[in-house]
Amino acid sequence: MSTTTAWRSVTPGSTALARVTIERRELRQDDIAVRIDYCGVCHSDLHRLHGLLGERDLVPGHEATGTVTAVGAAVTGFAIGDRVAIGTIVDSCGECAMCLAGQENYCYDRPTTTYGGTDRVDGTQTMGAYSREYVLREKFAFRLPDGLDPAAAAPLMCAGISVWEPMRAAGVGPGTRVAVAGLGGLGHLAVKLAGALGAEVTVLSRSAAKEADVRDLGATLLVTTDETQVAAARGRFGFVIDTIPGEHDLTPLIGMTGLDGTLCVLGNPLQAGPQLWALGAGRKKLTSSGTGGLRHTVEMLEFCAEHGIAADVEVLPSSAVGTALDRLAAGDVRYRFVLDMSDLDTPAS
Amino acid sequence: MSTTTAWRSVTPGSTALARVTIERRELRQDDIAVRIDYCGVCHSDLHRLHGLLGERDLVPGHEATGTVTAVGAAVTGFAIGDRVAIGTIVDSCGECAMCLAGQENYCYDRPTTTYGGTDRVDGTQTMGAYSREYVLREKFAFRLPDGLDPAAAAPLMCAGISVWEPMRAAGVGPGTRVAVAGLGGLGHLAVKLAGALGAEVTVLSRSAAKEADVRDLGATLLVTTDETQVAAARGRFGFVIDTIPGEHDLTPLIGMTGLDGTLCVLGNPLQAGPQLWALGAGRKKLTSSGTGGLRHTVEMLEFCAEHGIAADVEVLPSSAVGTALDRLAAGDVRYRFVLDMSDLDTPAS
Repeated sequence: MSTTTAWRSVTPGSTALARVTIERRELRQDDIAVRIDYCGVCHSDLHRLHGLLGERDLVPGHEATGTVTAVGAAVTGFAIGDRVAIGTIVDSCGECAMCLAGQENYCYDRPTTTYGGTDRVDGTQTMGAYSREYVLREKFAFRLPDGLDPAAAAPLMCAGISVWEPMRAAGVGPGTRVAVAGLGGLGHLAVKLAGALGAEVTVLSRSAAKEADVRDLGATLLVTTDETQVAAARGRFGFVIDTIPGEHDLTPLIGMTGLDGTLCVLGNPLQAGPQLWALGAGRKKLTSSGTGGLRHTVEMLEFCAEHGIAADVEVLPSSAVGTALDRLAAGDVRYRFVLDMSDLDTPAS
Repeated sequence: MSTTTAWRSVTPGSTALARVTIERRELRQDDIAVRIDYCGVCHSDLHRLHGLLGERDLVPGHEATGTVTAVGAAVTGFAIGDRVAIGTIVDSCGECAMCLAGQENYCYDRPTTTYGGTDRVDGTQTMGAYSREYVLREKFAFRLPDGLDPAAAAPLMCAGISVWEPMRAAGVGPGTRVAVAGLGGLGHLAVKLAGALGAEVTVLSRSAAKEADVRDLGATLLVTTDETQVAAARGRFGFVIDTIPGEHDLTPLIGMTGLDGTLCVLGNPLQAGPQLWALGAGRKKLTSSGTGGLRHTVEMLEFCAEHGIAADVEVLPSSAVGTALDRLAAGDVRYRFVLDMSDLDTPAS
């Protein structure tokens, strides 16, 4: 057992986090210990802190990069000093059809989430990467490819894989017209990844003011408050990826989805789906998905390294986590906050 | 203008139909006149008669076969005496993206339905094939291939194409595991067509008593009230086609849909879709569709002729239409009623 410093929720339903000392388990045979250097601030951290799942005592954080500091006796894939990345899950049953298909994120026995989950060996609650050290099975850690900046790469581990996997499953590539609704952490990475995959990318936004940003990302803006633009785009897109976090009407997005096209709703999976006839008028497909499996994550990291893709981030010291969460809740981020965990080495003032 | 005999609703919301004389338009240049020999009784006829769309004075009927009795001056594809089939739509704009894609059923300017629609030329209400004669543009009539029995083929024109088109769009074929929920008009044709396409077909039913019927259709029965069978089929099917007409919970069907599989809901498109997270747990696709376009209908008829596929029907004289509708509403049909229209040649008693 060792101890490390972390940011933990103190009041259920509040985003106020306290700097605390937590324990990390002694390394098991196939464990590695990772010094967390950077951790992205994900919208789902906000959801969980707001009590969505009725939890308390959470240490959030599930998109992190860091450096291996120790390895268990049976570890073969990592050595001390290696650059690693950690995502949203840290274990799964390994035996079900989903695990065997490389989709540990859909493990029939429930994947163990990086925080707020239950460790499969000792039954303790997992505590996330808003902390200076993390311990996990090497199987669920990823080598961070050379050339990827560790701060900008951290958000790939949730925001990135969450848009990458459904786009790959849908065969997004040259010739695909992709529309991205919501230009936040997930959305801006969807634009970059879809573009690098060869798709023609359009950003759907209520605000014409985003035009320059959208152009900088290599995409075209469609202003959804402009009825003429929306009408002209009827049935235009083969893949629409909806990253808008709040409750919203899916009808306009379904209307812009083409025959046999797919609307993938990621931002707010708790809302109800549309009436089925809305999908039937043109044979549209509605789907959603949840992060990604090991195989696709490795593939995404290699693709990002090859194409020089990472998140546009604003790096803050981890002590500013409260500011980051509040600004994220207010939509004041472009496009992802990343916490620099090195301030946890300094004694709290 | 000519007159013909038809079965028309007299009281809104009631399935009691009266034998009446109606007018058919004089043939336009590209029209053909068809003596209706057989017309299937579709569940949507019931819905419409029950006032779903707030209509009155309906002559239902949109899956018919018959014989050409006259052709307009510019008709090139049909001659008097040809066997023809008529489906759910009889016109469309011909210019939109959907029409150009051969999906006239999704015409952006609304296809003209075979009954209860509005004629694009003279603005009159279309009256369906529960009648002895129908007049339509030759473009929307289909040659009934040799070898197909005209009574058993009639239900192909709505029930058949409604399941054929989404299965083709989803690529159902050898290696696909297809599940069919609801063994009625659509369901039993889905079983036959999927089987002939080379898929492995399972029928999902609450009743173990259907086992022999299911086996006769070349499929396997899964009893959905048996939790063990349902659990064992988790994620098993690549394509689930839901033809159950009433309101029902989609959760078990989503559970049996595999990773990247599709649940196509046809029986009750007016119900609400599930919460999106239900689709996200395993990246399932939810879709629906509405009948079919000209291209796919031609393809289906040829496929059915080649494979000897038609509906299992119970043929009744058209004067028994009330009985047919009532028994259909009670689920007492195996698997489609077809009205024989020849009794309309005899003066009403």
